[in-house]
Amino acid sequence: MSMNAVVYKGEREVAVEEVEQPQIEHPNDVVIDITTTCICGSDLHMYEGRTAAESGIVFGHENMGIVTEVGDAVSSLEVGDRVVAPFNVACGFCENCENGYTGFCTNVNPGFAGGAYGYVAMGPYQGGQAEQLRIPYADFNALKLPDGDEHEDSFALLADIFPTGWHGTELANLESGDSVAIYGAGPVGLMAAYSAKLKGAAEIYVVDRVPSRLELAEEHCDATPINFEEGDPVEQIKDLHGGGVDKGVDAVGYQAIDPDKEGDDAYDPARENPAVVINNLIRTVRPTGELGIPGLYVPDDPGAPDDMAAQGRLGIDFGLLFEKGQALGTGQCNVKEYNRELRDMIIEGRADPSWVVSHRVDLEDAPEMYEKFDNREEGVTKVLLEP
Amino acid sequence: MSMNAVVYKGEREVAVEEVEQPQIEHPNDVVIDITTTCICGSDLHMYEGRTAAESGIVFGHENMGIVTEVGDAVSSLEVGDRVVAPFNVACGFCENCENGYTGFCTNVNPGFAGGAYGYVAMGPYQGGQAEQLRIPYADFNALKLPDGDEHEDSFALLADIFPTGWHGTELANLESGDSVAIYGAGPVGLMAAYSAKLKGAAEIYVVDRVPSRLELAEEHCDATPINFEEGDPVEQIKDLHGGGVDKGVDAVGYQAIDPDKEGDDAYDPARENPAVVINNLIRTVRPTGELGIPGLYVPDDPGAPDDMAAQGRLGIDFGLLFEKGQALGTGQCNVKEYNRELRDMIIEGRADPSWVVSHRVDLEDAPEMYEKFDNREEGVTKVLLEP
Amino acid sequence: MSMNAVVYKGEREVAVEEVEQPQIEHPNDVVIDITTTCICGSDLHMYEGRTAAESGIVFGHENMGIVTEVGDAVSSLEVGDRVVAPFNVACGFCENCENGYTGFCTNVNPGFAGGAYGYVAMGPYQGGQAEQLRIPYADFNALKLPDGDEHEDSFALLADIFPTGWHGTELANLESGDSVAIYGAGPVGLMAAYSAKLKGAAEIYVVDRVPSRLELAEEHCDATPINFEEGDPVEQIKDLHGGGVDKGVDAVGYQAIDPDKEGDDAYDPARENPAVVINNLIRTVRPTGELGIPGLYVPDDPGAPDDMAAQGRLGIDFGLLFEKGQALGTGQCNVKEYNRELRDMIIEGRADPSWVVSHRVDLEDAPEMYEKFDNREEGVTKVLLEP
Amino acid sequence: MSMNAVVYKGEREVAVEEVEQPQIEHPNDVVIDITTTCICGSDLHMYEGRTAAESGIVFGHENMGIVTEVGDAVSSLEVGDRVVAPFNVACGFCENCENGYTGFCTNVNPGFAGGAYGYVAMGPYQGGQAEQLRIPYADFNALKLPDGDEHEDSFALLADIFPTGWHGTELANLESGDSVAIYGAGPVGLMAAYSAKLKGAAEIYVVDRVPSRLELAEEHCDATPINFEEGDPVEQIKDLHGGGVDKGVDAVGYQAIDPDKEGDDAYDPARENPAVVINNLIRTVRPTGELGIPGLYVPDDPGAPDDMAAQGRLGIDFGLLFEKGQALGTGQCNVKEYNRELRDMIIEGRADPSWVVSHRVDLEDAPEMYEKFDNREEGVTKVLLEP
Repeated sequence: MSMNAVVYKGEREVAVEEVEQPQIEHPNDVVIDITTTCICGSDLHMYEGRTAAESGIVFGHENMGIVTEVGDAVSSLEVGDRVVAPFNVACGFCENCENGYTGFCTNVNPGFAGGAYGYVAMGPYQGGQAEQLRIPYADFNALKLPDGDEHEDSFALLADIFPTGWHGTELANLESGDSVAIYGAGPVGLMAAYSAKLKGAAEIYVVDRVPSRLELAEEHCDATPINFEEGDPVEQIKDLHGGGVDKGVDAVGYQAIDPDKEGDDAYDPARENPAVVINNLIRTVRPTGELGIPGLYVPDDPGAPDDMAAQGRLGIDFGLLFEKGQALGTGQCNVKEYNRELRDMIIEGRADPSWVVSHRVDLEDAPEMYEKFDNREEGVTKVLLEP
Repeated sequence: MSMNAVVYKGEREVAVEEVEQPQIEHPNDVVIDITTTCICGSDLHMYEGRTAAESGIVFGHENMGIVTEVGDAVSSLEVGDRVVAPFNVACGFCENCENGYTGFCTNVNPGFAGGAYGYVAMGPYQGGQAEQLRIPYADFNALKLPDGDEHEDSFALLADIFPTGWHGTELANLESGDSVAIYGAGPVGLMAAYSAKLKGAAEIYVVDRVPSRLELAEEHCDATPINFEEGDPVEQIKDLHGGGVDKGVDAVGYQAIDPDKEGDDAYDPARENPAVVINNLIRTVRPTGELGIPGLYVPDDPGAPDDMAAQGRLGIDFGLLFEKGQALGTGQCNVKEYNRELRDMIIEGRADPSWVVSHRVDLEDAPEMYEKFDNREEGVTKVLLEP
Repeated sequence: MSMNAVVYKGEREVAVEEVEQPQIEHPNDVVIDITTTCICGSDLHMYEGRTAAESGIVFGHENMGIVTEVGDAVSSLEVGDRVVAPFNVACGFCENCENGYTGFCTNVNPGFAGGAYGYVAMGPYQGGQAEQLRIPYADFNALKLPDGDEHEDSFALLADIFPTGWHGTELANLESGDSVAIYGAGPVGLMAAYSAKLKGAAEIYVVDRVPSRLELAEEHCDATPINFEEGDPVEQIKDLHGGGVDKGVDAVGYQAIDPDKEGDDAYDPARENPAVVINNLIRTVRPTGELGIPGLYVPDDPGAPDDMAAQGRLGIDFGLLFEKGQALGTGQCNVKEYNRELRDMIIEGRADPSWVVSHRVDLEDAPEMYEKFDNREEGVTKVLLEP
Repeated sequence: MSMNAVVYKGEREVAVEEVEQPQIEHPNDVVIDITTTCICGSDLHMYEGRTAAESGIVFGHENMGIVTEVGDAVSSLEVGDRVVAPFNVACGFCENCENGYTGFCTNVNPGFAGGAYGYVAMGPYQGGQAEQLRIPYADFNALKLPDGDEHEDSFALLADIFPTGWHGTELANLESGDSVAIYGAGPVGLMAAYSAKLKGAAEIYVVDRVPSRLELAEEHCDATPINFEEGDPVEQIKDLHGGGVDKGVDAVGYQAIDPDKEGDDAYDPARENPAVVINNLIRTVRPTGELGIPGLYVPDDPGAPDDMAAQGRLGIDFGLLFEKGQALGTGQCNVKEYNRELRDMIIEGRADPSWVVSHRVDLEDAPEMYEKFDNREEGVTKVLLEP
């Protein structure tokens, strides 16, 4: 049996092709019919050929749908259940999973801590930008949703970016009444700002250079927009706030644009400086403050601006960090730590992150949307695919 | 009125000279007669001329003694009380002090978060390597001790290195049953290892190159000694432990010796590599592990091996850190967070850190001991001065 | 020099009388001109003669105003500063204060942990329902506010009920996404519900019997109102929620009305049952849930319904509590733990608790307002006095 | 196929009889050959006929052994693995399990939160005082041990009493340097005292009336023994400590002996007072202190001394608890929260709780040992059975 799926064909090329349908491979599996699957900013790392991903991979780690097959050992799910799957694949019983670090499961990806669907080096799990998906350890990995199609967009965001934005604020130990600066107003940064609002942050600064994204931050998160093309963002924030803020979030990662580097107005790798956001955060946050870093950093980057960065070694202002007694937390989001609570907030109407979705299109349109998203076209914030 | 004190005269020179006696300057002050004051490894940074310290400074931030004068506003102390003062000077009512960050008080050192006795750039507080010391905000800063002279050595260590070692394990969130690697077996590293033992760590690895220090770690902390001159310490630990350890502590700081650099057997600045310990810790600690960094890093280091390091910017393996989802905490110790509990453990016989003391000498002998300590003479671990 | 103040004259009687003006008594004191002072529900315990309070006490522990005199040792305040004082008087340097338990200071009230202004058995501190107030340990106890008169009502609530309501949710470890039941819609209960909203609770149930209060909870806190006169509140909540909620807050205390006891429609002591709210909370909250209990319980209650309760011994369903593995936290609020953050939320417009204020009147009108408040007159939620 | 097992026959009677061997019932099960299984104090509640347990139940919830059969869905265990099973049966994927509350799993015992082997009302799981045991959700519930037979006694204690004692100190938030009072020197109380020692408590008081148990506490836990038959234990502790201690643990539960009640020297139910330990703890612990209550309390006790207690309603000094601002945590231990770390401490020689074991006998001797244990015979502390 075959189905349609978004297949990686090589640098800057994906195609919707027929691939084999997933099946129950282990008694703890379920298979779902995908109802919504999203394109993620991290898919672009592969799409741009900036990883070791080989052609043939089916993309898609932000997946939700309806259970169609249930393995013999699964006890909490039935055919017809509507579920959303964290992008992490996790076993539920290794030491890391037990401690809540489901993004660092040691049983799902031999030799490595952490697995995911449809992602290079994250284990043998086919992606969900397709008609169907197999979910391993399904009792643990599938979060049940209310039947029907209400909140479909918001629930789809529970697979990754809403929890990942929330994670950024958790890594920074953001508490009610804190002031916080968030670098990056892509989907994760916007979700971090929205999380900060939901948690009762007193002041929220969002730093980016794309006006439409900054407007979203202002409109939906009551954030103060800071355009880093208009002046040193650290000084802008300190001027407005009267000194360093309590907490900081890096929702950019290693492909950061350095305001001090010249280049094209459009996204221009020549302007990259992989440590610029971290170093700006160290300056932005006050002594004893904390930094949450959900933005991606990698130990190998063939496209890095210099040799040191190519092996993931960055020039960090560690002397200043130490003098300020700052702490920082990093790493991909452990989605299960947050997805139940966020789901409940959506159901009860306390949270509605769907404003971050800019497009909902047919699975067939994936190639076109990848291209637009990769070009950072104004207004393409978050794309949802519907098989 | 004058008294004897250890005065900095310039690079690698101190003298015991007459200086003016301290007096009550503010109603919240007390003055104490020093009974014990210690030489600290961080005094060597100034002694070696590697800071902006100017001649004339009275050294000494690890101080204990007997109250001789009490300001009008002081309500909990009386003449005759035996006290130990945290090396931090703190007001007790700024936001940082309220939150327990007494090492980052914003009221005692204009333009900076944090004050200390007898230290360059840490405010106008004379050091205690002298016959007397003024303690500001004394109700807040002086910890009462039982009368008499019992536990004099152990109590003196409450001013800095016992809490600072403990702080290292707190920054790493060390919990009972954890495995931990501690880089550095100087006084702070040894106290960190001892703290790990007291907290019930399951395995303790201590990394250094001085056999006598490693022996102390083994004897008093049940630690496994790792000599980094005998092979990559990361591999040594992973071989013994079977993989990465849960937690790591950097008790070395920026003047770290790189095992891979050649040089003199004695302490040789040419072998320095300010990021080597942090990068080794990132490799030593397992995914989701935490790093506590009490070892000193500075934003300006005139003696640094390269331009980047001279401004405190270090080449950190941030890609690997992120991939492993590690967190880290930094900064000088907030002594008051721990000194009551550690004092009680000493009184009750649960802790006795005095084994780290190698010398107790007259204040007059300070110049000689500074020289020996600076030469890292074998067996000179911790020196206490007695005025 | 004399001034006007609200003086307790005996059961159900207060008068505005001339008393001596406060003065600097200790170098750490300041004196303020009161701009706003509130009547608190806990003042009613004294007013009703249900405590050991003797006539002559000046009431008032919720105070704000302008500094008019500054003691010699005070370093962070100046004449003209606008401040609000926590109802707790605290020294700032005892073990409890250091650990954040400023409601349990061991230095301000001999033989007891905790002091307050104008309250029986809480130390020798005159109340602030007057023209002036002395604030001891002023650097520690006075929270600075922006100059002017903006947010006067909201800031006045920082002295007690806003932090106390927040404290209720902290004692229950309320987190974003939790469901919570709050018993009591008096000022503290309403502030607890408002805190729950600000923290991102998913569902908020507020239990009371006064329709106007339940309406405030619904309007300002997005809470679901539960009228306990209309049926067992536990069953009402479980029916709506589908089982036990995550967290519970008791904002009622020992003078609780038992829905199962008959009596007058108006407040009728014959219907009291001091354990009814705790036992209902145990039933309302799910296994592993947590209970925050800021509502007052006392070790001596002369007006108690039975001998056991008279000595503060209550019949608690401890078997059920244990079976459910619940935890609970109690005690008066440590205002300083929260007042900075809440102040910042008010300044930034994230929080505005002033909706709970029903009356702002002249100090002269205090006797009339005490009577109305004591009669639980519909619409008398929170009364502010203006000298 | 049949095997020998300890079967409950009615009040104060057990027999070793043939019962059917367990088999794989679900793909996530394993079956183990029991190598060690313990008699627990909580078995005595059933043995004494003080529960709803019906004859025919196979007892035994503290079990370890060797895997002999492995279900199809199990991925981390193999035949021959040596494992110890927490007394709790837990699914690993319900909300409570995800949050670490494996003692309150909602999937293993319909209508109730929490399951266990061989215990009335804890689900359909046969006990392990037998030759074999079925372990459900084995990947989650079986903790792997090193091969061989080293540390057999200590590892057996990981099923319940070592983690349960540890849990008592965790519920009280015991930290290094704290003083703590532990009521009860049965196996759980002794393990709580031992845990306190391992965590670096400064002072440990253990309250009981059996001299041999108090001696064990003194010898192995460096605890100060307090015999409650020799005077009010609260006053004894306060006299020695100089006031209230920081933390308290109730390792007794509802079948507590009241020192003020007269009766037989041997265990005499007429002297029971189910609230006496909690009320003594409230007095023993200082303001802001915390109480950990792992000792069992039940919502139904047919043998209770009064009607109120029969329904689990106890006269608690709640007024005093509130005035002191104390917090308390309750509930059965979530063994998986602690068993990995405690196992590692045993392997590394940091912990060796086997001193609490007084007897290791053949399974056949179970009836005799139940009788002795029930008689609280001097010297019968903890009994291990070997099939």
